[in-house]
Amino acid sequence: MTQHPAFDRLAVFAVASLAATSAFALQPTSAVDLAQQGDDPAWAITEGLTTEIGPRPAGSDREAAARKWAVATLRNMGFANVRDEPYQMPVWERGEEKAWLTSPFLPQRLAITALGNSGSTGPEGIEGEVAYFASFDALTAAPDSAVKGKIVFIDHQMEPTQDGSGYGLYGRGRFMGPTVAAQKGAIAIVIRSIGTDNHRNPHAGVTNFAEGVAPIPAGAISNPDADQLVRQRNRAAGPIKLKLILTPKTIGERTSGNVIAEVPGRESAASPVIIACHLDSWDLATGAIDDAAGCGIIAAAAKHVMTAGQPRRTIRLLWAGAEEVGVFGGQAYFDAHGKEKHAVALESDFGADRVWRVDFNLPQSAADLQKRIGLALAPFGVVTGRGKAQGGADVGALIQAGVPAIDLQQDGSRYFDLHHTPDDTLDKIDPVQLRQNVVVWAATLSLLANSSDSELP
Amino acid sequence: MTQHPAFDRLAVFAVASLAATSAFALQPTSAVDLAQQGDDPAWAITEGLTTEIGPRPAGSDREAAARKWAVATLRNMGFANVRDEPYQMPVWERGEEKAWLTSPFLPQRLAITALGNSGSTGPEGIEGEVAYFASFDALTAAPDSAVKGKIVFIDHQMEPTQDGSGYGLYGRGRFMGPTVAAQKGAIAIVIRSIGTDNHRNPHAGVTNFAEGVAPIPAGAISNPDADQLVRQRNRAAGPIKLKLILTPKTIGERTSGNVIAEVPGRESAASPVIIACHLDSWDLATGAIDDAAGCGIIAAAAKHVMTAGQPRRTIRLLWAGAEEVGVFGGQAYFDAHGKEKHAVALESDFGADRVWRVDFNLPQSAADLQKRIGLALAPFGVVTGRGKAQGGADVGALIQAGVPAIDLQQDGSRYFDLHHTPDDTLDKIDPVQLRQNVVVWAATLSLLANSSDSELP
Ligand SMILES: [Zn+2]
Ligand SMILES: [Zn+2]
Ligand SMILES: [Zn+2]
Ligand SMILES: [Zn+2]
Repeated sequence: MTQHPAFDRLAVFAVASLAATSAFALQPTSAVDLAQQGDDPAWAITEGLTTEIGPRPAGSDREAAARKWAVATLRNMGFANVRDEPYQMPVWERGEEKAWLTSPFLPQRLAITALGNSGSTGPEGIEGEVAYFASFDALTAAPDSAVKGKIVFIDHQMEPTQDGSGYGLYGRGRFMGPTVAAQKGAIAIVIRSIGTDNHRNPHAGVTNFAEGVAPIPAGAISNPDADQLVRQRNRAAGPIKLKLILTPKTIGERTSGNVIAEVPGRESAASPVIIACHLDSWDLATGAIDDAAGCGIIAAAAKHVMTAGQPRRTIRLLWAGAEEVGVFGGQAYFDAHGKEKHAVALESDFGADRVWRVDFNLPQSAADLQKRIGLALAPFGVVTGRGKAQGGADVGALIQAGVPAIDLQQDGSRYFDLHHTPDDTLDKIDPVQLRQNVVVWAATLSLLANSSDSELP
Repeated sequence: MTQHPAFDRLAVFAVASLAATSAFALQPTSAVDLAQQGDDPAWAITEGLTTEIGPRPAGSDREAAARKWAVATLRNMGFANVRDEPYQMPVWERGEEKAWLTSPFLPQRLAITALGNSGSTGPEGIEGEVAYFASFDALTAAPDSAVKGKIVFIDHQMEPTQDGSGYGLYGRGRFMGPTVAAQKGAIAIVIRSIGTDNHRNPHAGVTNFAEGVAPIPAGAISNPDADQLVRQRNRAAGPIKLKLILTPKTIGERTSGNVIAEVPGRESAASPVIIACHLDSWDLATGAIDDAAGCGIIAAAAKHVMTAGQPRRTIRLLWAGAEEVGVFGGQAYFDAHGKEKHAVALESDFGADRVWRVDFNLPQSAADLQKRIGLALAPFGVVTGRGKAQGGADVGALIQAGVPAIDLQQDGSRYFDLHHTPDDTLDKIDPVQLRQNVVVWAATLSLLANSSDSELP
């Protein structure tokens, strides 16, 4: 478990606050008090979903079971209008996945996983010479002749950042590398995992082949395996070779769905606050940090706001489906509800480590509200950032369409150690930091849900 | 890479020593000087063996390739009498390995590996109710009726210790658990990995079924998977079930071998100093810490002693085969050479982190030698222990037969994070700590190899 010295402050605050409450009041009243002192629905949800359901790949029976579990859990917590809004989506399924360094040394097995939407090698696999590129940019710059008939390898080692800003840079190798490699005539592509750990766990994730580009086999190997490939390349006099067996397939349209729940506001005409997470996960692990914890955090915060007293605005929870493979749930929500008014949108989808920064994208009318939020969060170690809130993927279409947004930015320093790997399991969640998330969300949410119509649309 | 503050001292010492040498002498003269200043054969051996050969399971063609590589490497380093001494041994081979929690929740896949000598479930696998035990002792104390027809699970979580002393206690679940479970009528046994990490990597290792006990399927699951099993058990109203597919097999006798090399001493009648490591590894990784590094350390130290000037006694290097699966190499060495005189035996087989303690098991005649070694090692952060040296597995038979021993005890705090897992790869080796090992070994070895016949037998 990681210890964060900054949290001693929170612990002291919580204890002091609890003592004060015992001495001076019989009942805690604010959502923040409740979040600090009460039981912890965020942990209960994260533990329950990962233990009872486990991995929840989009469009699978496991995701469907998670929706049933979610509807029951949210109803049981006292939320209103709890429902499963289904939609159809195309499903890609992982097959066998094996890789070997085959030449010039004795064959050595590598830990590999196929990228979502990868093509298949067929059951016999393929073998080819490695075309090495230090980065996605190097691949882009290379002539087709350097790639044609070969297996592309992109070797860019991701470095950790607190705000996760490296994902865009390093992630291009996964998002776009397969398309570029295919366009240049590669027979397959293997990337160094988009990850910051040194374990034999490859990082999964989706790639999208551009219109008209036939998918080639595409996989990620773990960092230690990428190191080994590089060492063999340095020692080999000539080319090195890889053999791949990846047999994923697309199985057509399947049903997925969004689970929605509400805390009804006092003023039904006021536009709702929408808060999101995603219920699906990759198949290699139980998806504790991505994104069971996010669903736990937003539901716990909303529950505390509800318990503290009915808010002015409705709070709508969106536990989206099928985020990992292309934000199908977020799109389905937008298709169904994009025309409705929304006051502001927030998402929790960056693990369970502490919120350290808050970013805003609010109208000018909300300047005072923004200041009130900044002041409310400061005691919990949250600074106000200077950047513009981007929102999460599942509320991305709403924000694109003009809905205001706030980002409660979580510490991502170790997020990409675990992201999309077999290691994304409950033991990686620090309960103290998880609770700080709930406290910060409860503080933010009670201010937003009680804001006036002159502040938010 | 782990940073150890204690090592700043070593780094400073090395730099100071280098500066002194440049100023006052044209050539470094002592083995310790060479170890601190020269190139690093320990790293070169560890990197070469793990990169070019990779995993080296006992009795396999990979182990045979490693022996060829070893003979060439040791000859190339200038050692004398380099040879491969073959022997026959029984070989067990890993098959398919899969496990699921199947009831009462949706099936969830677990990361499992078969224990060496495990029986097979057959290709269809077996399913059974879990008989839970908190420890090996709890299993031993249970009546047969609690176990019969079930799959035993032993849940003892290993805690890290600097001296590795927990291995004996926690390891009983692996060494003896399968025999006890089989004797009580279990259809299979699964243990929580004998390991201190929290990654989805199970820890392999051998078990030995007692005479007359038919092997049952026996596997280890990773710590996060064991946590998941326990959580499901806590949430389930009734029993939980496991399904296992483990299809290992024994394939009869195969050839293995010990690679031996020598630094010939000035006085051929003086008994040799024997230093050991093992060349084989488990098959899940490249065996960097277990035990390529050990072979690198002892060879580098011997090379530095040789370069510094011919020692009085011969130094004999034993790169033993087939240690992991039952110390067949150590036994073969003893069968072939156990009657010869040996002055003292040492082994490096506990990773590549720094030596922090030296333990002795020397005759009274070596009291002054022991003091000289303690004094020589103190500057490198090594304390003299109060315990009796045990020796490594490959020199165990010699020590049993009365050969004196010294243990250069390595820091094992993170050894069981990696031990026998897919994660035992080169990136886990800290070059600074690896070099400290070589320095400490060179200092010890030059004193031992130049000791008199009145000190050591
Ligand atoms: Zn996510
Ligand atoms: Zn994700
Ligand atoms: Zn070993
Ligand atoms: Zn071992």
